[in-house]
Amino acid sequence: MNILLVFAHPEPRSLNGALRDVAVAALRAEGHAVRVTDLYAEGWKAVVDREDFPGLAPEERLRAAAASAAAFEAGALTADVRAEQEKLLWADALILQFPLWWYSMPAILKGWVERVYAYGFAYGVGEHSDRHWGDRFGEGTLAGKRAMLLVTAGGWAEHYSARGVNGPIDDLLFPINHGILFYPGYQVLPAFVAYRVDRLDGPGFEALAEELRGRMRGLASDAPIAFRQQNGGDYAIPALVLREGREAPGARGFALHRVEG
Amino acid sequence: MNILLVFAHPEPRSLNGALRDVAVAALRAEGHAVRVTDLYAEGWKAVVDREDFPGLAPEERLRAAAASAAAFEAGALTADVRAEQEKLLWADALILQFPLWWYSMPAILKGWVERVYAYGFAYGVGEHSDRHWGDRFGEGTLAGKRAMLLVTAGGWAEHYSARGVNGPIDDLLFPINHGILFYPGYQVLPAFVAYRVDRLDGPGFEALAEELRGRMRGLASDAPIAFRQQNGGDYAIPALVLREGREAPGARGFALHRVEG
Repeated sequence: MNILLVFAHPEPRSLNGALRDVAVAALRAEGHAVRVTDLYAEGWKAVVDREDFPGLAPEERLRAAAASAAAFEAGALTADVRAEQEKLLWADALILQFPLWWYSMPAILKGWVERVYAYGFAYGVGEHSDRHWGDRFGEGTLAGKRAMLLVTAGGWAEHYSARGVNGPIDDLLFPINHGILFYPGYQVLPAFVAYRVDRLDGPGFEALAEELRGRMRGLASDAPIAFRQQNGGDYAIPALVLREGREAPGARGFALHRVEG
Repeated sequence: MNILLVFAHPEPRSLNGALRDVAVAALRAEGHAVRVTDLYAEGWKAVVDREDFPGLAPEERLRAAAASAAAFEAGALTADVRAEQEKLLWADALILQFPLWWYSMPAILKGWVERVYAYGFAYGVGEHSDRHWGDRFGEGTLAGKRAMLLVTAGGWAEHYSARGVNGPIDDLLFPINHGILFYPGYQVLPAFVAYRVDRLDGPGFEALAEELRGRMRGLASDAPIAFRQQNGGDYAIPALVLREGREAPGARGFALHRVEG
């Protein structure tokens, strides 16, 4: 497979840097082709603004979606954004690697999503009708590809457990797994999450690295999270609410959007 | 009261710009003092990197939390960050206003959090012991103050309802309300969320503005979300899991962390 790893940590000599090297080596050992976008090292522009849309007249009001659609359609997005879109089209699998900062991805990676996910590329794709509300949530430009998160967290695993004070990690990552990866079509593998990373010693690192190598070996074959297709019949359109009786007994919240086994 | 509104939209002539003006006018009409941080207009630096820590030697490895702690302790954070911290200390209430982009806040606002929320200021505060796991989640530097989100979304309210495909809006905003606002001590009011904002006409805007004025009048008095204090006895320390039997029947996920009435 072709694999793109987007790396969002400011320090190469960090645990994140070491885990990236482990992941890349494990993937290459499997025969995969790997490319890395190192956002900090490349000085990625994190903020969406007028400079992203060179065709916009100086006095014209910036409407982000409309400007994005026009620039994508005209092939007029900036070169850095077009290069990332080409990598996403090239890659059969995408890995987003980041430290969990304030319960979400770092700003630089959020800005990668906001800029690379153009209208017509990652959203605003496909027909809108009474039966089909755009190609999204399981359909779209990136359908047929796989994606997963590789996350480090300072807190303990218990703090992110079902009853942990931070909230369950799967729920904290749902807006990313479902709203950013499943949205444009990716099949999303369960996240790899390393906890309590500030206290990791040598044997602890080696155990973690071995676990990560296992996940990298399974990247092409592991079962994805069974998120529901938006246009597959489970949701009423256009209200996009889950039809009654589709869920497992007692399910609520984000868990409604997974097909239970 | 003193009120700080942090505004994260690139276009002043937007619905967000109009709603900001409505909010500020309504607050001033109540006699409040209002300051606005306009992140795009001020060219806010969105990314945490070495430049944030001028005291860090060029060859030294960047450990973000340690560097943040040292710089905060020494009063050596950059001037833009110190100015925002002073505004947070001045303000009795904080409003974060933003369009919901990819189910979270824009990168520029996430970067405001990452840079302004220094170690020793917003985290790493207070004692860690078997009875008290830092001053956080209801305690901390900003305890006694109020905060709320003012959010616009392109989708329909139904799409963000209990069974909506995006997930419930309260769950999507939990990592911000609980993890970013309640964490350093704020009492968090329910978010004001405007839906389907791309289709708003004149009467629709006026109705929305009137609703927003009502929320601004209630900023000092409306009941906050009843998030549980971390160190108040509901959680076992240090595992920080909610003790059995504290929750309402059937509650799970993020809802566990609210005291039910």
